[in-house]
Amino acid sequence: MSKPAAGPRLSDRQRLSWLRLIRTQNVGPASFRELINRFGSAEAALEMLPELMISGGAKRIMRIPSVEEAEAELDAASENGARFVGIGEADYPPMLKNMDNPPPLIAVKGEAAVFRLPAVAIVGARNASLAGIKMARMLAADLGRDGYVIVSGLARGIDTAAHQGSLSTGTVGVLAGGLDVPYPPENIGLCEDIAERGGAVISEMPFGWQPRAQDFPRRNRLVAGAALGLVVIEAAQRSGSLISARLAGEMGRLVFAVPGSPLDPRCAGSNGLLKDGATLVTEAADVSGAIAPLAGTRTRSIAPPEKAPDYSATPPPGEDERSGVIEVLGPTPVGVDEIIRHTGLNAAQVSMVLLELDLAGRIERHAGGNVSLVS
Amino acid sequence: MSKPAAGPRLSDRQRLSWLRLIRTQNVGPASFRELINRFGSAEAALEMLPELMISGGAKRIMRIPSVEEAEAELDAASENGARFVGIGEADYPPMLKNMDNPPPLIAVKGEAAVFRLPAVAIVGARNASLAGIKMARMLAADLGRDGYVIVSGLARGIDTAAHQGSLSTGTVGVLAGGLDVPYPPENIGLCEDIAERGGAVISEMPFGWQPRAQDFPRRNRLVAGAALGLVVIEAAQRSGSLISARLAGEMGRLVFAVPGSPLDPRCAGSNGLLKDGATLVTEAADVSGAIAPLAGTRTRSIAPPEKAPDYSATPPPGEDERSGVIEVLGPTPVGVDEIIRHTGLNAAQVSMVLLELDLAGRIERHAGGNVSLVS
Repeated sequence: MSKPAAGPRLSDRQRLSWLRLIRTQNVGPASFRELINRFGSAEAALEMLPELMISGGAKRIMRIPSVEEAEAELDAASENGARFVGIGEADYPPMLKNMDNPPPLIAVKGEAAVFRLPAVAIVGARNASLAGIKMARMLAADLGRDGYVIVSGLARGIDTAAHQGSLSTGTVGVLAGGLDVPYPPENIGLCEDIAERGGAVISEMPFGWQPRAQDFPRRNRLVAGAALGLVVIEAAQRSGSLISARLAGEMGRLVFAVPGSPLDPRCAGSNGLLKDGATLVTEAADVSGAIAPLAGTRTRSIAPPEKAPDYSATPPPGEDERSGVIEVLGPTPVGVDEIIRHTGLNAAQVSMVLLELDLAGRIERHAGGNVSLVS
Repeated sequence: MSKPAAGPRLSDRQRLSWLRLIRTQNVGPASFRELINRFGSAEAALEMLPELMISGGAKRIMRIPSVEEAEAELDAASENGARFVGIGEADYPPMLKNMDNPPPLIAVKGEAAVFRLPAVAIVGARNASLAGIKMARMLAADLGRDGYVIVSGLARGIDTAAHQGSLSTGTVGVLAGGLDVPYPPENIGLCEDIAERGGAVISEMPFGWQPRAQDFPRRNRLVAGAALGLVVIEAAQRSGSLISARLAGEMGRLVFAVPGSPLDPRCAGSNGLLKDGATLVTEAADVSGAIAPLAGTRTRSIAPPEKAPDYSATPPPGEDERSGVIEVLGPTPVGVDEIIRHTGLNAAQVSMVLLELDLAGRIERHAGGNVSLVS
């Protein structure tokens, strides 16, 4: 394992508090950030959590992981040859910072230096054809030779081939479960190889976490976020790879697809992406030619990094403010700006109410900072 | 065979003269039109030909087919169940009129009514894959059901499959040789079927003509010209189908391509078309959706029908005019406008000089009315 890069670092105590906070139910990347903004530290936020949950109308107070539980996870990471990297630290993947709601803490196994190279994601069908597998391996190898890191999701088929093709030049695997629970299990060896050969395997999920169906779209979000562009090779209609492509597009990443026969259902989704304007790829140069101009500039982020509202001058919200915000919320996601306009409250007040509601499990956060009421 | 449609018709005598004129060496569609414009009829033009060839500097006077020879070809057509249709006649394919230099006379076997339906050309590799063949047949059948006529070149592979798929709904085959010399020979039966089942086979070449290599691009030009759009299914790099696609684009026809695996060299050219902006096709609706808005308007012709220069007020060109035009010509095609600008001559004089040079075999005509000197 490489040494952490120089730069701002969390203290052991901070890292422990960050882990406890992000592992608390209903605390997601967005509410984590709000809490740190509002209370200055994870430690202070942890103390305020019960009160905020009650204010938000939680039916029961979510249990906060104990210091011992968090220490146990840190130990598990260490035994696994992994470590936790916080969003402010030098080893945090710079591309992820440009996402909406980046995970505040990720588990990393391998070489963090790989995050500093320009990255291309390659994803596709698990039940890929032999031609698709070959294409993924070739494209990954050629882009690797051109200096790009290949990011993928460690799934069967295209993902596995993309990692294998770029093992010697650097590849990043993103897991949907805990770092010690690779899925599918046959890729345990591939995970080891990636970490040992200069690449990295990352996860935002807890150690020991068995991935559920809903964890895969979340993994796909990180795959798309970690790269300048995403290449889809063989994707059926309504497949996970199309979700990755949509997410990549929403994040301002370039979307590419490899063409295939219209008679092969495994190409229906990828051909559909081409109809919708994805860039057609038959060789690595098609990707690098479009990505190279962005490689220096990091990314075309569509959402500028959010500025924290100034909480210092604002009294905490009361019942009137809370019911005002709830009134304008519904099952359709709305923007925070809209809520501010409709309620007449200021940004800090609205953010606080949303934070409380989020912690109480009553709202859901969406892309672009939009929120909806949980029905 | 259907009866000719109502409308202007050539007399038998005119048709005979037209055939003699177009069958004369160095008389192409462009010089044919110039001659008719200049002298009022094919008969008058035939009389002037020797003089014009000498003025143009021909080393020897090309032999004009005799009346008997032309009658023999008319008889051959008749025995073959075919007939000649002139560009002014109602049975002439309306789409062809919108091309640069349409053939003044075509041999037609089958139902001319098929020319009045909106048409889509489907072309591709002779050594097509089974998937490509299946795709061509499906696409042709589906477009046929949607009311489109399928135009193709009667070659092996994709062309044959496209004709077969649309036999029952109407298809037009364009031959590179004479109407009685189908190539490849195994498609003789297909030609019969096309003509008998409501479609048509056409050719601009003489009866009995064995197609040479250079006749196939000429055939491709008619295939592209006869349709509102052209679909390429499987085309290797530097293949004839790509020439058809380029010609179609130059004529303002829509260009479509079916995607395929980058690992299949038979798809390299068609995928390349997609990179260059061709519309991606996985099903008939992709074609009809783009073509339907044009089906009423005939075509988006990029070159407006040429207006004949007014010869009446202009004396025939002399040696000075001739050498002036030759001076500005070279191996690189130039426009007639440029020649007029550089020589200071008027349009009628330049046209006449070019006509003489053309008949003498000293210049070549190119798309867009450009001409170059034969080296």
